[in-house]
Amino acid sequence: MSSIKFTINKKINDRLGRAGVLSTPHGDIQTPAFVTVGTKATVKAMTMEQVADTGAQVVLANTYHLYLQPGEEILKKAGKLHKFMNWNGPTMTDSGGFQAFSLGAAFGEHVSKIAKGEDGRIAKQEKGEEVLSALAKVTEDGVTFKSHIDGSKHHFTPERSMEIQHNIGADMIFAFDECTSPQASYEYQKEAMGRTHRWAKRSLARHRELLKENGEKRALLGIVQGGRHEDLRKESARIISEMDFDGFGIGGSFDKEDMHTAVGWVNSILPEDKPRHLLGIGEPIDFFGGIENGVDLFDCVAPTRMARNGTIHTKNGRINVLNAKYVNDFTPIDSDCTCYTCQNYTKAYLSHLFRAKEMLASTLASIHNLHFTIKLVDDIRRSILDENFEEFKKEFLGRYYGNQ
Amino acid sequence: MSSIKFTINKKINDRLGRAGVLSTPHGDIQTPAFVTVGTKATVKAMTMEQVADTGAQVVLANTYHLYLQPGEEILKKAGKLHKFMNWNGPTMTDSGGFQAFSLGAAFGEHVSKIAKGEDGRIAKQEKGEEVLSALAKVTEDGVTFKSHIDGSKHHFTPERSMEIQHNIGADMIFAFDECTSPQASYEYQKEAMGRTHRWAKRSLARHRELLKENGEKRALLGIVQGGRHEDLRKESARIISEMDFDGFGIGGSFDKEDMHTAVGWVNSILPEDKPRHLLGIGEPIDFFGGIENGVDLFDCVAPTRMARNGTIHTKNGRINVLNAKYVNDFTPIDSDCTCYTCQNYTKAYLSHLFRAKEMLASTLASIHNLHFTIKLVDDIRRSILDENFEEFKKEFLGRYYGNQ
Repeated sequence: MSSIKFTINKKINDRLGRAGVLSTPHGDIQTPAFVTVGTKATVKAMTMEQVADTGAQVVLANTYHLYLQPGEEILKKAGKLHKFMNWNGPTMTDSGGFQAFSLGAAFGEHVSKIAKGEDGRIAKQEKGEEVLSALAKVTEDGVTFKSHIDGSKHHFTPERSMEIQHNIGADMIFAFDECTSPQASYEYQKEAMGRTHRWAKRSLARHRELLKENGEKRALLGIVQGGRHEDLRKESARIISEMDFDGFGIGGSFDKEDMHTAVGWVNSILPEDKPRHLLGIGEPIDFFGGIENGVDLFDCVAPTRMARNGTIHTKNGRINVLNAKYVNDFTPIDSDCTCYTCQNYTKAYLSHLFRAKEMLASTLASIHNLHFTIKLVDDIRRSILDENFEEFKKEFLGRYYGNQ
Repeated sequence: MSSIKFTINKKINDRLGRAGVLSTPHGDIQTPAFVTVGTKATVKAMTMEQVADTGAQVVLANTYHLYLQPGEEILKKAGKLHKFMNWNGPTMTDSGGFQAFSLGAAFGEHVSKIAKGEDGRIAKQEKGEEVLSALAKVTEDGVTFKSHIDGSKHHFTPERSMEIQHNIGADMIFAFDECTSPQASYEYQKEAMGRTHRWAKRSLARHRELLKENGEKRALLGIVQGGRHEDLRKESARIISEMDFDGFGIGGSFDKEDMHTAVGWVNSILPEDKPRHLLGIGEPIDFFGGIENGVDLFDCVAPTRMARNGTIHTKNGRINVLNAKYVNDFTPIDSDCTCYTCQNYTKAYLSHLFRAKEMLASTLASIHNLHFTIKLVDDIRRSILDENFEEFKKEFLGRYYGNQ
């Protein structure tokens, strides 16, 4: 029996989109929901109380990062992820695959493209991490890579990923997959996809063994790959949905133009009664596109990373608070916003903090962007429940992108 | 009539020390009290709610820093310091003198000694600020210095310091003084002291004009100088106490050995019914020595700066959380401590955050050190009220320094 339970409360007419509740051992998540990223068991520049105050329901940490630092044993001894980082709500970890490939440079020629995230559509690694030369190697067994911290050599397999994720101890974990570059050839995408399917089976088998061994409650989500190709995406969705996962992730990269369509191909095939997580996506327009095509969960570092660079979401589009005109602007970022930052500080103050390179700049901007992002997905959820998704979509997108 | 009111509730038998209440336009301060430093209108790495939660009663910002960035006009237009930085309690600003001299290098040969703060007894500038070559110049009129940010030239006089501080708008401000190096000759100390007294008179005159002009409530504290010399310190205390200040600051540097004695020389002469602030002091032993010699207020960047370097106060002395043994230590910094950090996080988690160079490391360590420091001064206050100052002093110092 699954440790999570997914209930659909309302659907968008004639679309795949739905609003529901995902129950986990650490509480319920009202879906669709934005999953806050706490890469190294901390949401950068914020305490977990500040994270909770933004409306966050669930936090996702990165297996690759925690495996390297502080190491899975520390997490295990600490009483698992929740206790270590002081977050009592639902948690997730990714499989470690994406970072092992991108930071370990498994793509060879495509690594810098992925690392830079030039297409704006793929999860990007945290700023400041160096991309090493192509020293990671993919075999049927798994991936061998060098640590971006100290160059030490490591080997991830589906089984090891499960063991590490069980030691970290999140409520929901992901199968180990190979995340390909959008520039990879059709042939390579197909080959990698096949590997991802075989790894999914191995992940599931080891996950079940571990559940028996440790008696803990933990859900495993399988990942659909297949790049930009309709036939591969559909094949991957079919094969992964036949395995007994508790939910599904949609991984890899898409072309900006066809992402929403591609997500629809996948979600038409995935079982309706299990949650679906679109990995590494956090642009406002993609929430609408993803949700109407059946996505329940999103995660992305963009809101907080943008914030640390002074780029801030407003209802009328994004601004950079380092712009000279904000030095003398004694109004909040958004006077209608209920976040702590907008309730208490002006753009002039944020401008001062960013210019003075004060840490509080990152904190206040992250609070706002995270609140904005979480609230946006939550507002979409309400629009589904209130049966005015299309109106809300039109109104929001016109306002947000109309002034860009 | 003064805008602040000081009431003494209890004295230490046969000593100068006292516990009291300092009433300001933004609320009462129970004294003795530690004044939290918010250099650039932010307590580094903390929100003001986090500052308030540590027990902080009053925040001091730096005139030199705010004058250069974002500039006094921004503070004025923002509705003054309180509103700008979101702190509704009492506030102070220093006169800008210390930073103009030390960052502007007015001491010539002594600048690096002051800048490095090698004797641990003088206020130190924030890490990361560069000390420029000796280009600041002191005349009877004031001090001309170059900005440490962009090298631009500026001129501070007692009158300008008052104008800037009125524009910033703290509840309590300081007269413009010349802070000398502990290595300065007796002759130079005497000469600078004379200048400080003439500048005190000019500060007071301009402050009164400004109060008439703006009709605001603001208290001015005069500063006693005189270096390490008993005759100069006593002379300075006599001359400054004859002027109608609302309170007094004790500035400059002392030899570690005789600081408490020197503070006693000064406080024996200063009027008993006005508050006394020992500038830039934050070492636990000096709180006891200062308080028993009649000090009511202390400020220092040390608690938060130390925190950002991983050096953390505990009841048994300070530790560095980057020490290898804390990687696996799943206990709080201090299990008896009631601060947010100790209530929710382990040394292992702090160790991880510091090693991963996560901003939350600075936040959590600053919360603890600030709470520790504020509580220590508050505990000393209670010991005066409970008539067991000597016992508490012996017990605390034995515990804190016994294990160093």
